[in-house]
Parts: sequence; C-alpha cells; structure tokens
Amino acid sequence: MNEGLMKVVALSGGVGGAKFVDGLSLNLPPEYLTTIVNIGDDFEHFGLKICPDVDTILYTLSGLANPFTGWGRDGETWTVMGAIEQMGGPAWFHLGDHDVAWHMLRTHLMINGMTLSETIEYFCGKYGIKIKVIPASNDAVPTMVHTKDQGVLGFQEYFVRCQFEPPVNEFVFANIQESRPAPGVLEALRDADLVLIGPSNPFVSIFPILNIPGIQEAITDKVVVAVSPIKQGKSYRGPAAKIFREMGMESSSASVANLYRGIIQGIVIDNADSSMRREIERWGIMVFETDITMDSVGKRKTLALDVIEFGKFIQKMMR
Amino acid sequence: MNEGLMKVVALSGGVGGAKFVDGLSLNLPPEYLTTIVNIGDDFEHFGLKICPDVDTILYTLSGLANPFTGWGRDGETWTVMGAIEQMGGPAWFHLGDHDVAWHMLRTHLMINGMTLSETIEYFCGKYGIKIKVIPASNDAVPTMVHTKDQGVLGFQEYFVRCQFEPPVNEFVFANIQESRPAPGVLEALRDADLVLIGPSNPFVSIFPILNIPGIQEAITDKVVVAVSPIKQGKSYRGPAAKIFREMGMESSSASVANLYRGIIQGIVIDNADSSMRREIERWGIMVFETDITMDSVGKRKTLALDVIEFGKFIQKMMR
Repeated sequence: MNEGLMKVVALSGGVGGAKFVDGLSLNLPPEYLTTIVNIGDDFEHFGLKICPDVDTILYTLSGLANPFTGWGRDGETWTVMGAIEQMGGPAWFHLGDHDVAWHMLRTHLMINGMTLSETIEYFCGKYGIKIKVIPASNDAVPTMVHTKDQGVLGFQEYFVRCQFEPPVNEFVFANIQESRPAPGVLEALRDADLVLIGPSNPFVSIFPILNIPGIQEAITDKVVVAVSPIKQGKSYRGPAAKIFREMGMESSSASVANLYRGIIQGIVIDNADSSMRREIERWGIMVFETDITMDSVGKRKTLALDVIEFGKFIQKMMR
Repeated sequence: MNEGLMKVVALSGGVGGAKFVDGLSLNLPPEYLTTIVNIGDDFEHFGLKICPDVDTILYTLSGLANPFTGWGRDGETWTVMGAIEQMGGPAWFHLGDHDVAWHMLRTHLMINGMTLSETIEYFCGKYGIKIKVIPASNDAVPTMVHTKDQGVLGFQEYFVRCQFEPPVNEFVFANIQESRPAPGVLEALRDADLVLIGPSNPFVSIFPILNIPGIQEAITDKVVVAVSPIKQGKSYRGPAAKIFREMGMESSSASVANLYRGIIQGIVIDNADSSMRREIERWGIMVFETDITMDSVGKRKTLALDVIEFGKFIQKMMR
C-alpha cells in the first residue's frame, strides 16, 4: 500500500451513488478504486437487457451522462421512443436512441456468451473508464416490490411506471439466496482498506448488494463508512424518504445509520442533520458532518475526499 | 362470389413479392386479397425478433417503404445503428431507427403473449392495411444455408452479412416438418379462386412456404399461377440467378416453371423470355408474356391486373 493511499471499494446504486463514485475517482488512482453496483433494478424490456444503475455509473464515469437529470445521456435523441409511442407501444420507460443502442449491444454481447461483468468491462474499455466497475452479481436478483394495494410489481414498474406512488410493504430480492457475487467482488472487498456505502437508497440499492451471500461476511472486519442519502428528512432524488415512512421509520440520517448498525463504523451526514449526531454515536457509529449535496463536480470531489479522510481517521482510531 | 371478382391468395417473399402484392391490392377489394408471407428469413438480432419479408410487405402496403431500396423505411434515420457501430457492435444488418422501434414493439408484443400473426394484425390496424397479411407459420422455420466452403449460415448472415457470396449446396428449413400453417392460411387457400406465387426467389422465399405441412395439399385443386422473378437470366434483385446456377440449373424463367411443375398451371414471364414459351408449355404449363418489371406503381398495378386476368382465363379453360 502506498503511503497514505487506501484501497477503496464503494457500493453503489444509481444517480447519487454514481456521482459519489465519480467524486472518488477524482481523488484516487484508478487501481485503488472499485465500485460494486446494484443489479436489483435490472430488467428486460422490449427483449433488451437493461441495467439502470450500472448504466448510470458507466455514463457518469465516462462523461456521457446527462448532467441535468443524472440518468440517461447528454445530447440524447428520441426517435425510437417517439416511434414506439406513435405505434401505441409502451413509452413509460424513457429510452433515448443512444440508450437503445447501448442496451441492444449489451443484449447482443450476452446472447453471444458474455456475462454482465464482461459487458461492463467491454463498455469500460470503449469509454476509457479505468476504475473497476463490477456488478454485485452476474445472476439476476430482481427486486420485487410488494405493494399495499397493487400486488407485486417489478422494480422499474414501481419506480418509473408508477412513479413510486404505491405504498410498499416489502422489497423481495428474488433468487438472492441462490445468487453468487460476481467474479472479483469478494476479492475486492477482502483487499479493501476502506469500504464505502454510497448515498444510495438502502432498501432498493444497497440491501440488494449486501444480501447476496458472502458479501456481508467479506466486510465484517473492514472499516465501513456510509454516506447518508437523506438530508433534513428528504432524499435528494427518488423515493428513499417515502419508503422510510412506509417501513414505519422516520426519514432521517439517523434511520439510515440505524439500518446499517452492525455493518458500518462511521456515517457521513449533512451539517443540517447535526442534531442526530448524539443518537447515532450512542450506537457506536462515528459521525462526520459536512455538506453532502453534490450539485457540482467540485463538490463531488470534495465530499469524496472528506469521506476517504474520515475512513482513514476511523482506521487509525481502531488500531 | 361477385361477378368477375376472384378471391386471390398470393404467396410472397420480400421486395419483389411486396411490390406485386401492392399491385394486387390496387386491383382488388381488400376482402378479396390475402397474402401468405415467407418467414424462413426471420431471425433474432440484438435480442429483437426481426421478420424482413413480413416487414417489407407491411412497409410497402402502408406506404412506409423506402421506394428506392424496396426494403427499409422512407425518411429513415440511423442514430442507433451509428451508435452501435461506434461502440464496436455488429453493423452488418442495417436497422434504421424506425425499424428498431418496430422490432422492439413486435418483440414486446410477443413477449407479452401475442403470436406473430397477431402482431401483424396489430401493425395492419395501426397503418390502415386492409388486406389480410398472414405469416406462413407462427412457428420458427429458419432457413439454414449449407454453403460449399463456409459451413452452415443463418439466412441473414448469408444474405446480408456475406452478401450471398458463399456458394450454396442446399437450403434447409429447420423445424419445418414440425411446423403448422398459421391460423387462416389453410382456410384462405381453400377459399381461394386463384393462388398466385409472387415474383420471389423460389428457393428461399417460396419453398419455405410450400414445404410447411398442409400447404401444398390445400392448393392441389386450385388454379395456381406464378410470376417469374427472372428476366433474361437475371433476377431484378438478390441472389436468385446465382442460386439457380449453384443448384446446377440454368438461371431462366423456364427453370422457374420447371421448379414449380406439378404445382402451377400457368406462369407469367417477361416478353424478353418469349423464346422459352414452347419449352414451358410442353410441361403443361400455360404462359403469359408481358413486361414483368415493376419500377413504378402504375406498372405494379398493370402487371397484377394482367396476372389476375390470366388466372381467370386458365380457370375458364379448365372448366
């Protein structure tokens, strides 16, 4: 290990996680950074294999991402989707023409024998992404959303088609007990000096990773630090706050810390949530307060650096 | 049956057949015309179900077709294909953005339980196509091309990727003995006053239809008239002439008639092939000579009308 340099592994979902990983990549040499990405939101649509979280990570790291939405592609065109809509086809999942090309190519590569991991390596190679991006698993572990009044929905149906409107009873990760971590996941975790949990939704982005057999075991003796996806009770984007309430919890950074009790040694929360510090520390979790918003590349980089430094601090404390 | 009106069923492949069926549709009320379309060239590419002959028929009848190529769409754009090519993906099968949308929607409809027939009805409804368009079968009967020196190729690999370059030993229609005609095929044939074989490639467009169990039996007592796809030894488009030679036959209208012996009572050949009349007639096949090129909508309509009248004439002769 280089003096002062830590091998970092970040668990990540989509938009928020992707920005954080991008921030990490601006602070670390690529060989010191691995991200393990949620695949619970993957699905098939129009016969194409679509991996929204993986693609958000890849688009963000390659500079292809739409900086305004955080998902999808910059300068995207919509010919295909417009034509499908005009023919009466389903248009609820917005696929730009470049998305379509990307999903067609991935589907083609997988039909021809590549694993999901290998397709990611392919795209990383094409777009000069040097950090290691690994899917949590090459097995499908689709998140099934058990709603209170609309039965069981596929994740993207719930998330995009229904705009996360239906109240949720439970998220079930189908097939997860039979799934295995993708090649390199356990190795990266065992090798890590610091494991980070990105500012992603715990329920639908992080637990589908942590519940894959072997992953929690691989990080039991690691320094694990989470970044809260909640600030002043609200999530920057998506349904995290709403889901916390439906699960009978307060929507807060303290609830995030509580969910990760036994897994994390530290959590990074927003300055605005300072009042929760005491409660979280009582659970034996160290707290670092900063500005957790990432609305510029500079802020991504700063947050990531602070999180790494906080991790180093915890590591020193624990020696 | 209306005075003078005949119920016509036309067997068809792609471009040439599509133009001929379009010509027929300009001469007959829609309820008097059914086309049964080759599906031997269907394939899956990028996970999408693609039916080139069916789509050429639908694009042509709906006025969506590119009038210059005969295949693909008028005013097409190429964003998706360009992106796939840029990412190093396979670009040998040219899919315009509107093609992609069309194939995505068909794939979606079939994943959700529609048969191929039902997807065709769906598109016909969307685009105001009133004649009946039926696939030869709802079962896959992919044409496998046994080449002399490149092993076995899928049809589109042979036809598009290899530009029908490799010499052919044999075309094998996989699974055809187990296939069944699509709903409505046998009924339409039994109901027909006249069965036409469009100016399509006999080997790869018409035999994959005729070899589906039950189809030849359904037309044994019908007046069947073919339109030659060959003029002066050449095919207007595609590999017909080349294939004739590789199969050890002369590339000529007489060879077309010979291939269909026992199935047809009449054949329409080009004026330029007049010298073959005698030979064909010796096989008990009546011959009508005209201009078989269809390079304008007017000529499509005229040819189709002449073919119908020729069929009527044969019918009267046989009474």
